[in-house]
Amino acid sequence: MVGQTTLFSGHGALQPGRGPVRTGVTIILPHSDNLFLHKVQAAVYTLNGYGKAVGFEQVRELGVVESPIALTNTLNVGLVADALVQHAIRQNPGIGIETGTVNVIVGETNDGYLNDIQGRHVRLEHVLAAIENASSVPVREGAVGAGTGTLCMGWKGGIGTASRILPVEMGGFCLGALVQSNFGSPGDLVICGVPVGQYLSPLRLPQASGTSPELNSFQPADRGSVMIVLATDAPLDSRQLSRLCVRAGAGLARVGSNYGHGSGDFVIAFSTAWINEHYPESILRSQQVLADEGKVMEALFRGVVESVEEAVLNTLAAGVDMTGRDQHRAMSLPVEDVLALIRRFRNSL
Amino acid sequence: MVGQTTLFSGHGALQPGRGPVRTGVTIILPHSDNLFLHKVQAAVYTLNGYGKAVGFEQVRELGVVESPIALTNTLNVGLVADALVQHAIRQNPGIGIETGTVNVIVGETNDGYLNDIQGRHVRLEHVLAAIENASSVPVREGAVGAGTGTLCMGWKGGIGTASRILPVEMGGFCLGALVQSNFGSPGDLVICGVPVGQYLSPLRLPQASGTSPELNSFQPADRGSVMIVLATDAPLDSRQLSRLCVRAGAGLARVGSNYGHGSGDFVIAFSTAWINEHYPESILRSQQVLADEGKVMEALFRGVVESVEEAVLNTLAAGVDMTGRDQHRAMSLPVEDVLALIRRFRNSL
Amino acid sequence: MVGQTTLFSGHGALQPGRGPVRTGVTIILPHSDNLFLHKVQAAVYTLNGYGKAVGFEQVRELGVVESPIALTNTLNVGLVADALVQHAIRQNPGIGIETGTVNVIVGETNDGYLNDIQGRHVRLEHVLAAIENASSVPVREGAVGAGTGTLCMGWKGGIGTASRILPVEMGGFCLGALVQSNFGSPGDLVICGVPVGQYLSPLRLPQASGTSPELNSFQPADRGSVMIVLATDAPLDSRQLSRLCVRAGAGLARVGSNYGHGSGDFVIAFSTAWINEHYPESILRSQQVLADEGKVMEALFRGVVESVEEAVLNTLAAGVDMTGRDQHRAMSLPVEDVLALIRRFRNSL
Amino acid sequence: MVGQTTLFSGHGALQPGRGPVRTGVTIILPHSDNLFLHKVQAAVYTLNGYGKAVGFEQVRELGVVESPIALTNTLNVGLVADALVQHAIRQNPGIGIETGTVNVIVGETNDGYLNDIQGRHVRLEHVLAAIENASSVPVREGAVGAGTGTLCMGWKGGIGTASRILPVEMGGFCLGALVQSNFGSPGDLVICGVPVGQYLSPLRLPQASGTSPELNSFQPADRGSVMIVLATDAPLDSRQLSRLCVRAGAGLARVGSNYGHGSGDFVIAFSTAWINEHYPESILRSQQVLADEGKVMEALFRGVVESVEEAVLNTLAAGVDMTGRDQHRAMSLPVEDVLALIRRFRNSL
Repeated sequence: MVGQTTLFSGHGALQPGRGPVRTGVTIILPHSDNLFLHKVQAAVYTLNGYGKAVGFEQVRELGVVESPIALTNTLNVGLVADALVQHAIRQNPGIGIETGTVNVIVGETNDGYLNDIQGRHVRLEHVLAAIENASSVPVREGAVGAGTGTLCMGWKGGIGTASRILPVEMGGFCLGALVQSNFGSPGDLVICGVPVGQYLSPLRLPQASGTSPELNSFQPADRGSVMIVLATDAPLDSRQLSRLCVRAGAGLARVGSNYGHGSGDFVIAFSTAWINEHYPESILRSQQVLADEGKVMEALFRGVVESVEEAVLNTLAAGVDMTGRDQHRAMSLPVEDVLALIRRFRNSL
Repeated sequence: MVGQTTLFSGHGALQPGRGPVRTGVTIILPHSDNLFLHKVQAAVYTLNGYGKAVGFEQVRELGVVESPIALTNTLNVGLVADALVQHAIRQNPGIGIETGTVNVIVGETNDGYLNDIQGRHVRLEHVLAAIENASSVPVREGAVGAGTGTLCMGWKGGIGTASRILPVEMGGFCLGALVQSNFGSPGDLVICGVPVGQYLSPLRLPQASGTSPELNSFQPADRGSVMIVLATDAPLDSRQLSRLCVRAGAGLARVGSNYGHGSGDFVIAFSTAWINEHYPESILRSQQVLADEGKVMEALFRGVVESVEEAVLNTLAAGVDMTGRDQHRAMSLPVEDVLALIRRFRNSL
Repeated sequence: MVGQTTLFSGHGALQPGRGPVRTGVTIILPHSDNLFLHKVQAAVYTLNGYGKAVGFEQVRELGVVESPIALTNTLNVGLVADALVQHAIRQNPGIGIETGTVNVIVGETNDGYLNDIQGRHVRLEHVLAAIENASSVPVREGAVGAGTGTLCMGWKGGIGTASRILPVEMGGFCLGALVQSNFGSPGDLVICGVPVGQYLSPLRLPQASGTSPELNSFQPADRGSVMIVLATDAPLDSRQLSRLCVRAGAGLARVGSNYGHGSGDFVIAFSTAWINEHYPESILRSQQVLADEGKVMEALFRGVVESVEEAVLNTLAAGVDMTGRDQHRAMSLPVEDVLALIRRFRNSL
Repeated sequence: MVGQTTLFSGHGALQPGRGPVRTGVTIILPHSDNLFLHKVQAAVYTLNGYGKAVGFEQVRELGVVESPIALTNTLNVGLVADALVQHAIRQNPGIGIETGTVNVIVGETNDGYLNDIQGRHVRLEHVLAAIENASSVPVREGAVGAGTGTLCMGWKGGIGTASRILPVEMGGFCLGALVQSNFGSPGDLVICGVPVGQYLSPLRLPQASGTSPELNSFQPADRGSVMIVLATDAPLDSRQLSRLCVRAGAGLARVGSNYGHGSGDFVIAFSTAWINEHYPESILRSQQVLADEGKVMEALFRGVVESVEEAVLNTLAAGVDMTGRDQHRAMSLPVEDVLALIRRFRNSL
């Protein structure tokens, strides 16, 4: 389940700080029940650690997620983490008093090219609203929630999702990916194998009048990042979920990422089929596990690579033109031009 | 340099929440200059990841610390992280606008046995005050700053420090440890090899009237944690600093820790002799490094083990009796009784 | 410097065991001097750990390589490791007696589809010969040394190399990659963005008479693996070299790898500009390091991705048709057909 | 099940190489059946990676052990790994031909102070003999198998074991430790809290005539190492087994280890209650897992710390005086003197 709150102050509406607000928060709920009481098996993976993700240490140690997963902007991580703590306490008044504390998870990318990032505009009410409006209807993509102000491969990025279902003989499991895309250089963009970035560039498109394309029409390379959340109903333990996470990197590479120096690239994976109870009834329990790891994982790996690639492309396909702080502009990917390129390519073979 | 703000609401002064406030924040500054501009080489190590430390991913990736290191209580991590972000922005107005964002580091232990931990009482002003009052005078130990409400091996714990100087033939380097102690079970306490925990127990000491010693005289085993910060002037790179961190575990084991399931045990190490400039003047520079890693590291390892053990004991030696929320009581270790035990033991050999 | 010994028993010459020998050893020497005395800074990275690489633990701990790096087949790892130990003892008679022991590094892939892998035919003399014939002339590619019997994306794979030189303003450093390719599924092959695997398949090419293409014309997916060695003259420490290693995964993804379940994908990187002396003259020394990590690493990352992709393609371009044990056949990639495909594609855009 | 082959050439019998042979191999079999077909859940942990352990990468990735675990001396690792490969092929003729390859596990310590280590005397026949004679009778301790020529805290070390059984309310599980002890400095030895190393030293005991105690009566600090194998019948997954491994470090610290620079300290853990079939009958299966991780792990952690400490002490208690290559001598710990010290200490309290 996904819920999102989009902060968008209107075209050109200046904040007391640096200008327009173009940011938000996206919440991923592994299930609709109390996550602190009914934790899901999980894993995290750091492809490039130049980022401020919160809550990873405990997931590595205990292999579970016990709170909503929040995505937001880089400088807002502290406030969003605190909001998740407050939410958990409201839902579970015994936290820190009669039982242990709660581990909250926050991912982030830097939307400071368009957004007034120093303002840290995402507050408790926005986090609670996103949790409240979370549902299992198809996720809104593009400039929404944590993707409101992000850029990807030089174009307007945002939130995107994709999924795969395994053949029945491999268990028929589902695998879904949600990405917050904010990485990469325009020239590197590859779509379905076509080096789109060599033919289409935001630099060659019309600019905001009076601005220099070199200076402000796309985000500098060292400000990127991408957050990837993988969900599956296959009963994977945290070691196996870690293996899924690694394959997200292949999906990013397919669209042209080099996992750049300044790009914090993080992956979180969870399984909805493996619940750890906060108050277990006994010491042991019975759990479905993979008997044939190779067969199922091979299929899931392919699903991860394809879903991550597709989810990133969906963030581009759902892009909108946007003007942000200091007249910084982002263009949406011209989908028709891209389709024409791909069509010419396919016909040539 | 260390600065601390202690929040202590007075004996029995109830908060609107759960009761007295017994918490605070301890700030470690690797140097007195702007840390964002002049980063120090660093490493982090997770001995047991059942904790909520913030900022570790980027230290692993880039090997530097670029903000003050804050220690506080578990549920306060988000607000303290946000306070450090605000501090960094004040000091460096270009963060997120003209240059990258800042990675802040927060460690925590759960002081919820004595403290009204849900109240998250450590706020921006307390963090700024601790940074402001940081100095290089000897660190106040015991129930101060982030150690105000912590317990260690069943007794009142807190902040403690210790250090060693290497012989000149091994470089004459300094190694210091600061710990925020909040771990362990009373029966396991060992001091200088003497199993003190088998002879002295907070359970056998006089209790608060009307309370049952079994129920509330010490913190349950699964609520512990310890944060350890190591500082050295040896020119170690982040790989070498990681190796130092691992040895902190041996120091903890010497006082009786088993790195319990619920104890988030984390180590951060930095070197003041290896500065990375945020705005470097050139691509390359010259740096002193260890030519004889074995010789120096062997000596530093011993220094870490001894300093961590001693720093933990110093948190106990500086203990004070304290009453916290819900009439929870903590006893200070009866130092004279311990000394008598050790004296008898030494005389016997 | 690279040296290789190729074991190739001649068409159809059956071994007492399972049949023809199609294997060998490839040796990488970071420099021409005594590596035990003059170690190079290094790092290792495990992208998928389904493999038997030897010597990785000590590289992670100490950050150096102190022996030749050998690549061979999976079941031959023990004998090749022992051969490297013998070589090190001959060169340094004090090993294990007057000084410490030596850490040798062996990588492997499974060439058991073509090779009599149980025979473990690579012996001391072959390892010594490869070390002896090592030189800095351009590396022979294709079915040579450790690549003699390997398959890649369903076609004949082998040894391949590629390199990049950074612009002067980024230091002018060199970055080279050597791969032993033995991974992937035919349908996934992508070359320069063209999904070649969807148009050309070893299954659709003429087979050995009397054999069923489905059963034996290419290696099953779960037997793959790839070893990647990265070399640079940039003065990187082991943390920075680790970061290079991670980007090798993006290069593999570009040619169609999903880092399959059964594929042991390992990366080793070293810098020739950072030497650690076994017998240092003093405790400290001066070392060139990166002052501007972001700028140099960003350029090196791109170099790694491009070099690894190109090196893999070079293993395919240098392929030869081969018949191995049990009449197993491998086809070389039909380069002219691939070029025609790419030409059509390029002309279409 | 444990089997051991001890190579011991007789007092002073010089080898063509450096002198007497004082080494061997110790084999740990997680169960008596075919391990390749019936793999056990496992984990590995590197406390200090200055060592040459083989097979760790695949255990980390797949979480299973699929061959006997062999312990031997440092320079013999290649030959022993090859012997395990040969053993696996004999037992499973399809390895590398009809199915995948096998991952063998070898641990080592450096016994070169007493042993002619360059001779690499442990060969196939010795490995096979140890596997053959493996049984579940109590393990022989001291100078046997891989412990034949090792030293610990300056005294004769070797093989040692210890175990704990959990209370029924924590599942009643068993936890056993086997160590190959070869680490530490004489002055640091602590037994039951008594700093024995400050009162008893091999340096103050009678030496071999004509030798200088300073030069050769104990192994230099940088040649140590320790291998620890943990076994349990609790149904732990590999993440949970990793957590067990970490606590072995606390056991080592209790006897005086600082995890010295040159000491390769490695831990391997497996569960006999979690079997992965090489040829599974279906995609999924049902598995007992911990419902209450905290409760069981807390008890197992204590068991690991105590068992490792006790197993190390058992290697000392089983020590024998030994003369090795170049008239190097090792003394056995004078157990009576130690007991007297401890008795005085206990009586004093």
